Amino acid sequence: MNTRTETTAACRELARRLGDRFSTSADDRTQHAADVSHHRAQQPDGVAFPASNEDIATVVQVCGEHRVPIIPFGTGTAVEGGVVAIRGGISVDLRALNSILSVNVADMDASVQAGVTRSRLNEHLERDQAKLWFPVDPGADASLGGMAATCASGPSAVRYGTMRDNVLGLTAVMPDGRIVRTGGRARKSSAGYDLTRLLVGSEGTLGIITEVTLRLHAVPQAVSAAVCPFSDVDSAVNCVIEVLGAAIPMARIELLDEVQIDAVNQYSGLDNAVVPTLFFEFHGSHASVDEQARSVERIVERHRGGPFRRADDEDQRRRLWQARYDSYYAAKALRPGGIGYVTDVCVPVSRMADCIRRTRELLRTTGIPAPLFGHVGDGNYHVVFIIDPQSESELAEVCDLSRQIVDLALAADGTCTGEHGIGLGKLDALEREFETGIHVMRTIKRAIDPHNIMNPGKVLRTKLQSDL
Amino acid sequence: MNTRTETTAACRELARRLGDRFSTSADDRTQHAADVSHHRAQQPDGVAFPASNEDIATVVQVCGEHRVPIIPFGTGTAVEGGVVAIRGGISVDLRALNSILSVNVADMDASVQAGVTRSRLNEHLERDQAKLWFPVDPGADASLGGMAATCASGPSAVRYGTMRDNVLGLTAVMPDGRIVRTGGRARKSSAGYDLTRLLVGSEGTLGIITEVTLRLHAVPQAVSAAVCPFSDVDSAVNCVIEVLGAAIPMARIELLDEVQIDAVNQYSGLDNAVVPTLFFEFHGSHASVDEQARSVERIVERHRGGPFRRADDEDQRRRLWQARYDSYYAAKALRPGGIGYVTDVCVPVSRMADCIRRTRELLRTTGIPAPLFGHVGDGNYHVVFIIDPQSESELAEVCDLSRQIVDLALAADGTCTGEHGIGLGKLDALEREFETGIHVMRTIKRAIDPHNIMNPGKVLRTKLQSDL
Repeated sequence: MNTRTETTAACRELARRLGDRFSTSADDRTQHAADVSHHRAQQPDGVAFPASNEDIATVVQVCGEHRVPIIPFGTGTAVEGGVVAIRGGISVDLRALNSILSVNVADMDASVQAGVTRSRLNEHLERDQAKLWFPVDPGADASLGGMAATCASGPSAVRYGTMRDNVLGLTAVMPDGRIVRTGGRARKSSAGYDLTRLLVGSEGTLGIITEVTLRLHAVPQAVSAAVCPFSDVDSAVNCVIEVLGAAIPMARIELLDEVQIDAVNQYSGLDNAVVPTLFFEFHGSHASVDEQARSVERIVERHRGGPFRRADDEDQRRRLWQARYDSYYAAKALRPGGIGYVTDVCVPVSRMADCIRRTRELLRTTGIPAPLFGHVGDGNYHVVFIIDPQSESELAEVCDLSRQIVDLALAADGTCTGEHGIGLGKLDALEREFETGIHVMRTIKRAIDPHNIMNPGKVLRTKLQSDL
Repeated sequence: MNTRTETTAACRELARRLGDRFSTSADDRTQHAADVSHHRAQQPDGVAFPASNEDIATVVQVCGEHRVPIIPFGTGTAVEGGVVAIRGGISVDLRALNSILSVNVADMDASVQAGVTRSRLNEHLERDQAKLWFPVDPGADASLGGMAATCASGPSAVRYGTMRDNVLGLTAVMPDGRIVRTGGRARKSSAGYDLTRLLVGSEGTLGIITEVTLRLHAVPQAVSAAVCPFSDVDSAVNCVIEVLGAAIPMARIELLDEVQIDAVNQYSGLDNAVVPTLFFEFHGSHASVDEQARSVERIVERHRGGPFRRADDEDQRRRLWQARYDSYYAAKALRPGGIGYVTDVCVPVSRMADCIRRTRELLRTTGIPAPLFGHVGDGNYHVVFIIDPQSESELAEVCDLSRQIVDLALAADGTCTGEHGIGLGKLDALEREFETGIHVMRTIKRAIDPHNIMNPGKVLRTKLQSDL
């Protein structure tokens, strides 16, 4: 169904029940039509601003009755089109659900509503002098609910894990309107099916995550960083493999290729050598951090990297990491007026040098700027194509290149996305990656969301509700 | 259905298709009727010994046609009755699937068939001088497929995680006979629903795990251990909380209460002080291990524990840990002829002292020997009741005590099982823990296994196939 009449009826009902927490204004619809990526904006028919789990249950109930799509919206900072209202419907903006519900210092956990951003949680922890922090950092100041829904990670995953590893439990409103609590605060559990990890990464297609209970980590006594240029990507990657094998508990290992380094130099007026470069971060006791850095320095030398520049105080460290933090904006500055088409894959580290080499060979076939960088401690790397937003042919070219990058990763036992998710952008890739598993995913989707109202058409390809 | 006729027909068909890889002998049926726990043995109608995924698909197909239950069997070393053939059917013994398929040293992963035990994998890694190991150790030399199916963990989980954290991907035969590959070898992925973690811990109720890809870890450069008595459980637990908060990367933190220490002293002729005792293990570089141990020693002193006895070489370490390794057999020796009724719960560490205190008050109400020990770095503790196998009243009493122990844990935001699973023993407990989530679990079970042939009656209460 989802006919115009049904949508109108649902909007009318939501306006009646939610009052000013529901809007059909052009502004609100425009602001909820797209994420930060190249995916074409498509407006929802209305936007709900729930203030409670019960408000969300109301939205789900009304939309369920009228078979109208529901699209959860965190901060809109993702890159695979997960929030685009491809079939209209109601966007559910979770930013008003912004309470930090509890911080348990002894247990090193916190429960927050879905709209709380990671920075806000960390600021709160710092103010409380809890000596705890939440390390998952996808770059953008995303909401923790959105980060759970997309299974976000970032540079610290090599040490602290992804959202999958750091969400202990959650509350979700399911497609039937039931409010379900999964997981809990215990550090481990063998109690039944792992609904927490089923919902983490489900991108709003199985339910709306409204609260998350997160594992916190002790703020390390000491933090140190280092940066190190290499003559070629292979040497840098082989160095990473040896560091990982040496059981050095690395907090971050990031690679920027020379295209990206050049972009950053131009953008921020830096003078890094224009070669592939590794960025390291070490966390631990003062003695341990020092030992880690010295161990890595020795490995770096064996792989003919260097000079190995360390930064121990926060200011130095910030300057050192500047290049890494600026990556995306520096890439965009390569082509004023361009937009970013970002793709990410993740491969076993032993295959990474080969995959990155072949990927860069592909990138040399196009004139489109396409720097490469990544969280190479996990085998995860990104390409940011800077395309002309008006050019259909560039979009088509980049779609094709992106498909080839995914195929290289899949052929190397990798995955089509390490941390960006499927959204709209990788529906085909997911089918290629899981030829058999995709049927099980569809079975689960159909069972939990029989009317296909939850972010339809994302993650799994579903042409019409009746096709699912 | 699952009538006698259908079962007979299925057995006949399996005998025809599997030849001597299928048995209905009394011996084989007896050997597959129970695990090591108190749960009453109930024989399957036949036992399949598949030699390949295709053999398993055959079993599933034949059993599916005849609606006959399928019960996967690893080593039979679990404790919640997961392998008991409560409705007859075919036990699928996976021990012949014992190939180590690949070890990727640079990627620190290995793929093995389900029947490979953890010791065999570690022996293989040691022989290969790969300097890698697989740290998850539930005590018994369980099969890695069984450990995945039950989400096993053990003492090292505080540092290295549980099976949930260490299974990167798996192959499973699903109830429709399809062979499905989930996850992969990449260290992280946001690609679609996390089927790996849905199957890990599903105890054979959603599919039969036939292969697992495991995360390996670098063998630490140095290992050290320490043991430390405390005047009371509260001080010991408060010490644990401070150690965790200090970001010391502990490899193991185990607690034995004085009943257990006394049992071990008697069993192994040791002379440990009969008081609550913590066992620590440290992994890292030589310098780091030493620093960790010294940091813990300082914390121990603040909590009036001591003497803090260290053991750096392997022999010393083995003697020191003897008490912990002997726990279960020492407990059983408290009552010759008795059998163990084991229960495990897991709570947030801040609630652990209170939960353990109340649990021990409960235990004092019974004359049945009931030592308590646990992986307290995770808030996970076990009670082993040693009961008279002939006494229905003791069984009833212990069931009731076990229920109360679970309720204490649930009231403290804990889980009804940290690592033993649900099996037959905690069906009610799971329903109490997840009042709403249980419906989602049932929905998933029904969708994936519509005829309820996969280990029916385990994890989720299902009276008859038609009731599911």
